[in-house]
Amino acid sequence: METTRPTRETSVDVEIINIGDELLIGQVINTNAAWMAGQLNGAGFRVATVTVIADERQAISEALEQAGKRAPIVLISGGIGPTRDDITKQTLCEFFDTKLVFNTEAYRDIEALFARRGFTMTELNRMQAELPEACTSLPNKLGTARGMWFEKNTAGSQPVIYVSMPGVPFEMKEMMTLEVIPRLKKIFATPVIVHRTILTQGVGESFLAEQINAWELALPDAVKLAYLPQPGIVRLRLTGTGREREELDRILNEAIEKLYDMIPHYIFGQEQETLEQIVGKLLLERGQTLALAESCTGGYISHLITSVPGSSGWFRGSVVAYSNDLKVSLLGVEEESLRRFGAVSETVVREMAIGAQHRLNAGYAIATSCVAGPDGGSAEKPVGTTWIAIATPDDVISSHFLYGDNRERNIRRTTLQALNMLRKQLVSW
Amino acid sequence: METTRPTRETSVDVEIINIGDELLIGQVINTNAAWMAGQLNGAGFRVATVTVIADERQAISEALEQAGKRAPIVLISGGIGPTRDDITKQTLCEFFDTKLVFNTEAYRDIEALFARRGFTMTELNRMQAELPEACTSLPNKLGTARGMWFEKNTAGSQPVIYVSMPGVPFEMKEMMTLEVIPRLKKIFATPVIVHRTILTQGVGESFLAEQINAWELALPDAVKLAYLPQPGIVRLRLTGTGREREELDRILNEAIEKLYDMIPHYIFGQEQETLEQIVGKLLLERGQTLALAESCTGGYISHLITSVPGSSGWFRGSVVAYSNDLKVSLLGVEEESLRRFGAVSETVVREMAIGAQHRLNAGYAIATSCVAGPDGGSAEKPVGTTWIAIATPDDVISSHFLYGDNRERNIRRTTLQALNMLRKQLVSW
Repeated sequence: METTRPTRETSVDVEIINIGDELLIGQVINTNAAWMAGQLNGAGFRVATVTVIADERQAISEALEQAGKRAPIVLISGGIGPTRDDITKQTLCEFFDTKLVFNTEAYRDIEALFARRGFTMTELNRMQAELPEACTSLPNKLGTARGMWFEKNTAGSQPVIYVSMPGVPFEMKEMMTLEVIPRLKKIFATPVIVHRTILTQGVGESFLAEQINAWELALPDAVKLAYLPQPGIVRLRLTGTGREREELDRILNEAIEKLYDMIPHYIFGQEQETLEQIVGKLLLERGQTLALAESCTGGYISHLITSVPGSSGWFRGSVVAYSNDLKVSLLGVEEESLRRFGAVSETVVREMAIGAQHRLNAGYAIATSCVAGPDGGSAEKPVGTTWIAIATPDDVISSHFLYGDNRERNIRRTTLQALNMLRKQLVSW
Repeated sequence: METTRPTRETSVDVEIINIGDELLIGQVINTNAAWMAGQLNGAGFRVATVTVIADERQAISEALEQAGKRAPIVLISGGIGPTRDDITKQTLCEFFDTKLVFNTEAYRDIEALFARRGFTMTELNRMQAELPEACTSLPNKLGTARGMWFEKNTAGSQPVIYVSMPGVPFEMKEMMTLEVIPRLKKIFATPVIVHRTILTQGVGESFLAEQINAWELALPDAVKLAYLPQPGIVRLRLTGTGREREELDRILNEAIEKLYDMIPHYIFGQEQETLEQIVGKLLLERGQTLALAESCTGGYISHLITSVPGSSGWFRGSVVAYSNDLKVSLLGVEEESLRRFGAVSETVVREMAIGAQHRLNAGYAIATSCVAGPDGGSAEKPVGTTWIAIATPDDVISSHFLYGDNRERNIRRTTLQALNMLRKQLVSW
């Protein structure tokens, strides 16, 4: 997803190598690459390639060799844990023609970590204090595997920096933030790269692309556009590359302003904002509170909301009434309504919203009820049938949706739709 | 993470190329690679390398070229969407020395898809019916971008199969399952690969490795072991490679039996099982039901449980009582207990469990209360302070834990710990 506008010429390329069998057999999703790329991008570096390989001598040496031919910075994660199946450190020694030596500082750090946790050090942990002589070792505050910073200078080639980090995500993140990125920024003069992301809900990628086609074609050369679709959400990412932050901000703001004029009804936020954060901010500003009555979303709306730090300031709580009798006893839904219309109905979802608003003593309430699937559908109410209600201080609104047959996606779509319905109520309040 | 035991010799190598700027700037996590690898592995193929590149002509041709030198099968996802920023199809034409031609079958499929959805076809969608002349095109039941299957025969090199698929995960998954893997299995005679995964909770990676060291060293040559740690869980993956499924199963079962004898208290399940599935199965077997009273976990336990299809058969519901007054009004916690001991205390968490058990009318109940962070800690109750209670038909048990300062991880650890505490109660019942 890229136009032909240049960025390569002006930014410093980085290659990422993630080592680990677990990434190649599909049991672990490579979240490290995305996180590393995001951080590097923000610091003005450009990730050109990510390579994932097994923890095998030949694969590692080849990947190190090739990455170093393409980029002046190669960042490696994984393969340096305490267990016997990790071969990366030995391979690094061979590649940099050096040997393992015992590092007293590293040993003391590992000792201290184990003392803090009250665990006993093992022989495998002691071996982690042996590090390649040729590297600058980087502290690991959260684990036993230190980082290793190498510089390779080969006659006739550009010098290349290689950094090996642990694969455990939170250890790698701490090391990238505290050590690797600050050191790289001292060495490389990076261009200014500014990313801006516009978040839309309720419109598909190709339809959106048609709608904003003229705007896209008129974007200035310094700006690239990418479409990033997710279930229920399409993100538009604008990337500006140049010399001056202020100039880029001006160009991007202008483009974004035009976009808001063009499709105001689809845009719900910007950047890393989430609907739950936006809703929380709007509630706080209005001195209002929220309660939930969840049936098919089963606690997912509540989970997203309580993942926001400080949500206790505006979130009262949730009743996940998975069984019908709890809809009656905990939310005050009429037994007659359940009998006549069924749990997945406009009447019941409205009663759930009102019940949550009153019994949980909140200004606003969301209620959801749907046939999430894979089973439980009928001719009248197929899998994907969804009702959402929002109780506000003055009113109750309700809407019907028909989603697909994937349980996980139905829960997610219902959740996003419900939060966006609440947002629209709050904005127009 | 790998021992030196051979697998490369006996399985057919596949390279995966994922195309997309969005994967290189950190806004989208590459879940496609993990899914593809898992499916390929199960079918007896070995993913040797995953390469992630931008949607740029040069990067794509280089990656195609290099992957084809290393493996006889190259699977590509991404870069063939309807928007103007995708350049992959043009680059494939150049690489295979062919040109785009209008494909009537593809056009009809796209037309039919739009008719079903009630959308209007755009010019960009019409262009998706233009496909390289040299490829066999593969149907896409769920979207507009067809798959493209190429075979490259270069004098002096091994023939290579290249398949280009959409990057949208559910479209790619459908195409892999229905078209790509069945076609590959017809062409290649693959060895038998059997993976078995043992799930442990409550023990760190290095401590576990020491405990099972003798067992690990005594594993037969056909079996490889890898440690896959996650917050709160360490998975042990055993991979057997050979000719006969039955023989491999026998060897693996024997090894796993020995492991159960060695560390029975750490193992909670196998394979892709989750604690919520296991707990659900145990409750169903016993004709029992579960209710939750969640404070700091904020609906996350409920979300995991309701993600399990059929959970309505044993899950009653949850009260997420985020504010203290709701702990009193919805769960019957004594105001006096909150005043004397605070919400994060043994007394309150036990009263929450009993309240959920009675008011939600369930055989078992879980209650959680903790200081999730990042704020809200005190000298007496620092961030990470956690209380969990389990109410059973006969008893209430409660335990205290001290986790770290990361909100997300604390919520997850508390959730896993609570589910495992319930599991142990159910097993000993």
